[in-house]
Amino acid sequence: MTKPIFVLNGPNLNMLGVRKPEVYGTTTLRDIEHSVRSHAEKLGLGIEFMQSNHEGDLVDAIQRARSEASAIVINPAAFTHYSIAIHDALEAAELPVVEIHLSNVHQREEFRHRSFVSLQAETVIAGAGAFGYIMALDYLAQR
Amino acid sequence: MTKPIFVLNGPNLNMLGVRKPEVYGTTTLRDIEHSVRSHAEKLGLGIEFMQSNHEGDLVDAIQRARSEASAIVINPAAFTHYSIAIHDALEAAELPVVEIHLSNVHQREEFRHRSFVSLQAETVIAGAGAFGYIMALDYLAQR
Amino acid sequence: MTKPIFVLNGPNLNMLGVRKPEVYGTTTLRDIEHSVRSHAEKLGLGIEFMQSNHEGDLVDAIQRARSEASAIVINPAAFTHYSIAIHDALEAAELPVVEIHLSNVHQREEFRHRSFVSLQAETVIAGAGAFGYIMALDYLAQR
Amino acid sequence: MTKPIFVLNGPNLNMLGVRKPEVYGTTTLRDIEHSVRSHAEKLGLGIEFMQSNHEGDLVDAIQRARSEASAIVINPAAFTHYSIAIHDALEAAELPVVEIHLSNVHQREEFRHRSFVSLQAETVIAGAGAFGYIMALDYLAQR
Amino acid sequence: MTKPIFVLNGPNLNMLGVRKPEVYGTTTLRDIEHSVRSHAEKLGLGIEFMQSNHEGDLVDAIQRARSEASAIVINPAAFTHYSIAIHDALEAAELPVVEIHLSNVHQREEFRHRSFVSLQAETVIAGAGAFGYIMALDYLAQR
Amino acid sequence: MTKPIFVLNGPNLNMLGVRKPEVYGTTTLRDIEHSVRSHAEKLGLGIEFMQSNHEGDLVDAIQRARSEASAIVINPAAFTHYSIAIHDALEAAELPVVEIHLSNVHQREEFRHRSFVSLQAETVIAGAGAFGYIMALDYLAQR
Amino acid sequence: MTKPIFVLNGPNLNMLGVRKPEVYGTTTLRDIEHSVRSHAEKLGLGIEFMQSNHEGDLVDAIQRARSEASAIVINPAAFTHYSIAIHDALEAAELPVVEIHLSNVHQREEFRHRSFVSLQAETVIAGAGAFGYIMALDYLAQR
Amino acid sequence: MTKPIFVLNGPNLNMLGVRKPEVYGTTTLRDIEHSVRSHAEKLGLGIEFMQSNHEGDLVDAIQRARSEASAIVINPAAFTHYSIAIHDALEAAELPVVEIHLSNVHQREEFRHRSFVSLQAETVIAGAGAFGYIMALDYLAQR
Amino acid sequence: MTKPIFVLNGPNLNMLGVRKPEVYGTTTLRDIEHSVRSHAEKLGLGIEFMQSNHEGDLVDAIQRARSEASAIVINPAAFTHYSIAIHDALEAAELPVVEIHLSNVHQREEFRHRSFVSLQAETVIAGAGAFGYIMALDYLAQR
Amino acid sequence: MTKPIFVLNGPNLNMLGVRKPEVYGTTTLRDIEHSVRSHAEKLGLGIEFMQSNHEGDLVDAIQRARSEASAIVINPAAFTHYSIAIHDALEAAELPVVEIHLSNVHQREEFRHRSFVSLQAETVIAGAGAFGYIMALDYLAQR
Amino acid sequence: MTKPIFVLNGPNLNMLGVRKPEVYGTTTLRDIEHSVRSHAEKLGLGIEFMQSNHEGDLVDAIQRARSEASAIVINPAAFTHYSIAIHDALEAAELPVVEIHLSNVHQREEFRHRSFVSLQAETVIAGAGAFGYIMALDYLAQR
Amino acid sequence: MTKPIFVLNGPNLNMLGVRKPEVYGTTTLRDIEHSVRSHAEKLGLGIEFMQSNHEGDLVDAIQRARSEASAIVINPAAFTHYSIAIHDALEAAELPVVEIHLSNVHQREEFRHRSFVSLQAETVIAGAGAFGYIMALDYLAQR
Repeated sequence: MTKPIFVLNGPNLNMLGVRKPEVYGTTTLRDIEHSVRSHAEKLGLGIEFMQSNHEGDLVDAIQRARSEASAIVINPAAFTHYSIAIHDALEAAELPVVEIHLSNVHQREEFRHRSFVSLQAETVIAGAGAFGYIMALDYLAQR
Repeated sequence: MTKPIFVLNGPNLNMLGVRKPEVYGTTTLRDIEHSVRSHAEKLGLGIEFMQSNHEGDLVDAIQRARSEASAIVINPAAFTHYSIAIHDALEAAELPVVEIHLSNVHQREEFRHRSFVSLQAETVIAGAGAFGYIMALDYLAQR
Repeated sequence: MTKPIFVLNGPNLNMLGVRKPEVYGTTTLRDIEHSVRSHAEKLGLGIEFMQSNHEGDLVDAIQRARSEASAIVINPAAFTHYSIAIHDALEAAELPVVEIHLSNVHQREEFRHRSFVSLQAETVIAGAGAFGYIMALDYLAQR
Repeated sequence: MTKPIFVLNGPNLNMLGVRKPEVYGTTTLRDIEHSVRSHAEKLGLGIEFMQSNHEGDLVDAIQRARSEASAIVINPAAFTHYSIAIHDALEAAELPVVEIHLSNVHQREEFRHRSFVSLQAETVIAGAGAFGYIMALDYLAQR
Repeated sequence: MTKPIFVLNGPNLNMLGVRKPEVYGTTTLRDIEHSVRSHAEKLGLGIEFMQSNHEGDLVDAIQRARSEASAIVINPAAFTHYSIAIHDALEAAELPVVEIHLSNVHQREEFRHRSFVSLQAETVIAGAGAFGYIMALDYLAQR
Repeated sequence: MTKPIFVLNGPNLNMLGVRKPEVYGTTTLRDIEHSVRSHAEKLGLGIEFMQSNHEGDLVDAIQRARSEASAIVINPAAFTHYSIAIHDALEAAELPVVEIHLSNVHQREEFRHRSFVSLQAETVIAGAGAFGYIMALDYLAQR
Repeated sequence: MTKPIFVLNGPNLNMLGVRKPEVYGTTTLRDIEHSVRSHAEKLGLGIEFMQSNHEGDLVDAIQRARSEASAIVINPAAFTHYSIAIHDALEAAELPVVEIHLSNVHQREEFRHRSFVSLQAETVIAGAGAFGYIMALDYLAQR
Repeated sequence: MTKPIFVLNGPNLNMLGVRKPEVYGTTTLRDIEHSVRSHAEKLGLGIEFMQSNHEGDLVDAIQRARSEASAIVINPAAFTHYSIAIHDALEAAELPVVEIHLSNVHQREEFRHRSFVSLQAETVIAGAGAFGYIMALDYLAQR
Repeated sequence: MTKPIFVLNGPNLNMLGVRKPEVYGTTTLRDIEHSVRSHAEKLGLGIEFMQSNHEGDLVDAIQRARSEASAIVINPAAFTHYSIAIHDALEAAELPVVEIHLSNVHQREEFRHRSFVSLQAETVIAGAGAFGYIMALDYLAQR
Repeated sequence: MTKPIFVLNGPNLNMLGVRKPEVYGTTTLRDIEHSVRSHAEKLGLGIEFMQSNHEGDLVDAIQRARSEASAIVINPAAFTHYSIAIHDALEAAELPVVEIHLSNVHQREEFRHRSFVSLQAETVIAGAGAFGYIMALDYLAQR
Repeated sequence: MTKPIFVLNGPNLNMLGVRKPEVYGTTTLRDIEHSVRSHAEKLGLGIEFMQSNHEGDLVDAIQRARSEASAIVINPAAFTHYSIAIHDALEAAELPVVEIHLSNVHQREEFRHRSFVSLQAETVIAGAGAFGYIMALDYLAQR
Repeated sequence: MTKPIFVLNGPNLNMLGVRKPEVYGTTTLRDIEHSVRSHAEKLGLGIEFMQSNHEGDLVDAIQRARSEASAIVINPAAFTHYSIAIHDALEAAELPVVEIHLSNVHQREEFRHRSFVSLQAETVIAGAGAFGYIMALDYLAQR
């Protein structure tokens, strides 16, 4: 049996549907998890889904992914822009990584234009909303 | 009948399969066009597919898209980084725009890190290779 | 009954009275908590007071504040300058935020001149020492 | 008989009245051409009026202006900010050049603040809308 | 009866005809005032004309313009580049503002490339010499 | 009898209640002066209150403060960002200085992010509106 | 009896021997701990050895070091470059600090060239591999 | 028979002998073509000589060179400094490239100091005037 | 009879002997005026000596110098670093200008490293204290 | 018999014990040479020890090291920050290089933060005083 | 008899054929001198050939060239990027100067992109290997 | 008997009277030495006068000055802008230092605006030509 895909979510994504709906929409993270699981099932993929406001928890999860996962889908949220620890963990993971942003970060604040995660990701999807998670799974499935 | 999606390709993409295969793969642009057309058909979408080394031709096409297309998928290649004319044409088009890059531009030369197109695109996909075109169609179809 | 004000304190503020007394004075964080509670009582305000060296704990607290607090007073200490996660949490909280710095950060190291928290705070007070907490309460009371 | 004034218009100006009317107004380029011709007639000036989305066409026109025109009025639009080829053509033309921008570019995106054309123009008019063309003719007439 | 246009001139413009004639020409400020008044009369406009070397005097005049003038024509000279006080006064004036520079500032010293006044002006004219004042009146008249 | 506190106000603050009420509110400077005097009386403090659009007048006042005042409360407005003369005067005054900004300057234009006054102020309060003056007095009273 | 030396290790160092062996070698962190303990014993020094992916845990440990340790040896890994919280904790610790990097960070990515820890360290050793820990102990022993 | 060398010339070089003779001399591009052809004949080399003001034409020519030429000599003129499309075409051509500038670009405007072509050229010759073309041929002949 | 030398002093120099004696010494501006007058007398030079905190007053004085003075000695103090109005006035004055700074500005705050006055001065003397004025007179006398 | 280690010292290190003892201590370079020789003897290593104020002499020595030395220990002092010639010599030497700084250069002037030598050194030791030489020998011995 | 051409070579060029053969080739500087002398003889030119690791020696030689040479060919190597002394000597020499780099410096480290020598050279040749010396002689011969 | 003043001159100053007379005048360095010696004699001062194109020679001389000189007058010429070795030598010398530039360096190339010597000089004189040496002696005599 193949290893699952780790779908990791960074800080404040648990507030989805609450924070700035005009930017992120009204879908909650729970909604996303459901559609991710349902789409993965269709593709015959396993999923481990997680969210944390703690950088260290995400680093721990990525380290675990190295042996337990077949790929990583990560929406790093605020950590995108300064967490070199996550960058290093992804580098050590040696797995395919898809980076997702719900909104098009290039049209937001200047400080959101730098991504440390993009330096380790194979593929980057921004601005596709919750559908970005589905695209990420499709990408990994066809790979 | 709904309007087709314009799939526009910037300079040197006609050399695909020739130039730097380790970055872009061996797929030719003709191959991509075929898989785009075949996938669009499945989704019930019309396609107009075009490539040019001339910035003005792409501006002309985007202007035409305003009245003739329902959405734009664009791989602007080198023009991504300096063509403000394309930026302005996309702004005037008032259509959904998906920007595609075959490779993950964030891991290439510094001068490829700035995108004028991202300022007008709804969604940006980088590093998914030729499959990025398929993801763009899926995104537009579910939208 | 109205909701309390969350008074949040960032990393190393538990060392107050120990670290660099010439910059921060000899008052401990415990002393500050006492005078905050005593002043709040006079103003008829409830207080929840917290300190953490962990960014994630502060993000968690700010998320909780959204439903449980009427306002946030935050001395983000070192996190002021790089925690975009705290910035995003404050943005999602949709509450009045007062940012406090014991010392006048503008006269300290270059890297202390940028504040991500100021982008979300309504009011910023720097260089008033422990009395800055009192001023913050007064400001929220008269608001 | 004196040589005409070349009135040159850069990319996307053919979309005038369509694109961002809150920035450029509803006047079309055809309207501008009419009022330019009518005003020039009053001043006893000949006009050659042109628009192109192709940088090379504008360079060709400026080169032709050297022997066929008495002055150049140019609204370079997007090319303002990166076309060194147009800069060099204007330098070689050795004619009076008036640069026009419909909107006040200084209040728009950062990347619109640099003008290569201003380095070769005698006079620059920004933010006067379509009336800027009239002012340019008046300036050249009184010169 | 309509309110007059305030025509304001910054520091050292009283030296016109003296300082750097190769840049500004031999026309004096008095000459300019005369041609401005004469042209305004033709257009049926009233004029209040003033020059000062004192930033505060210009701020005072702009504040007075708010209630007494219908528009402002300003040649801010050196203050263009650093007077945020004039910027703020113009913002508060809530009047149409035309900014004039006798020479094409874009071809002069680097420090003359930044204009705080352009952030508040509707229209900017540079490099038209004394005729720029006439163009400014024409612009305001047709507005 | 102790010396009064000098409360100094920079350019355009006399326009308060007029300029950008959505940023500064409808309170006039006269209103602020009244509430400052009334609050100072309660605290047993004397006040000298002044506003000027002229940098030199503020420098003169700060120099006078050296011998005649016990402290300075200053809202330097536009001068905050470029008046090194005021910076030097404050340095020479050798008095406690509280810097006030009605709005949170950190959320406004880039050029408002640098403060020369903060380099000499003991305490900085931004974004508390007119209440900032009251906080400044409280701070000086408890000092 | 003298206090032990705290040997602190930042994020992903628990992956040593796994991640990028061409940069860091095949030695594991466990191997390093053993050689550190064995060398410390020879020098008559006590050791407390720790690794964490959580910034807050390292801050907590440094705060504890203040009273329980005689010196700190720290390999901050990714935190080197952005953790101002660790910087502040080290400043408050008032102990001799030796900063270690296994590789020569000056030859790696640009973002690894800035060290907040170096601002608080007495001594910095980079590029000596696992032997850097031994050198750090020798340095502290001879001090 | 060996393939010819493509000698490509960028925008405004057709104005040679007209534009700024003090920088470029009075030699026309026709003169240069003659001396290039005559020198090539001596060296037994074939030549295809071309000039265009259109970036796309140069990209097309470079793409054709890939199969039809043995080497490229290019004087990219203004395109040197911003045409990433030409950069990418040269990269794909996989031929020896010699970049020529008639004048010493390092002594001209700041914006002429960056060359995208130099990133793909084997050899760069600047400031040798028309003789630079001869040197380029000699270089390719001896190679 | 020859025209006098204007000796002009910028803001806060009237506080000399008061402000930062460790930087400027205890000599007052009055003392300097005396020694300047006494030394000028020896050299047979006339002196007009002035100080102002108002930029406009200094501009007025420099404009007057054009016809009434033979040379200018100026200690621009804080205005050195931002007064383009003084720069322009000096440029228009067309007189020999000696710029003086009591202290060595190159060893002080970063913002004191830029001098607009140096762009117009023939000679610059920094760090010679009050004796700098004497050196300036000697220089002008021997000239 | 193995080749000696070259221990090279840059400009002004012959002033050690004289210059800034609070930064470098009172140990002279002669003292350092003695302890280096004595420690090397224990390790069975040969030493060639040299100091020069002349960049060229150091380049000469490094070139000689290529054939005569087994490793280089270098304290480049001021040359660290600008001598690309030493950088190139070290690159050509193809030997293990240890770079030493007596003080922690990261806490000194901004211009001491860049090191050309670090780009060629295997290991860098800063802030260990004269003991840094001993650590360098130990590192080379265990290598 | 005409004066010889000085062919000057900067630091580490005596290591040619040793250092980085993949960048510079296996030709030694002695080989280059031979081919230079042989080619010069054919052209009827005299040669003085020199290499030094000492900046001062090169400055001395350039000063001597002023009276003894007819032109200078210089490969400044590392000194290219920081030796303002060589820049000034070349400026004083008032001779034709050809600057040579064996490799294409534009494709190497960032710090090799700035050339002080290019500001004084008439012609610059980079990336032609040892043949660049021959091209330089040809250029000077035809001049 | 008091120690002499060392008058040190940097590279290319031996070319004085030759190089760029419009910048430096026709006076030779020999002329300057004579007037320096003659003026020093009047002031009762001894002089040691030296020029070198070799940075190391100047460092050696400054080190010798420490014990043999009472003060240093230095015209560092090109070394001003990059010789940190001279900076460090002057710092170690612990003597009064006067830095001289014949021309006003602030009006010359950008790269001449940074001075490492100014960081160690007590006094800086620029643009007074050869008379600057006399002023330096006068300054040291009155000190």
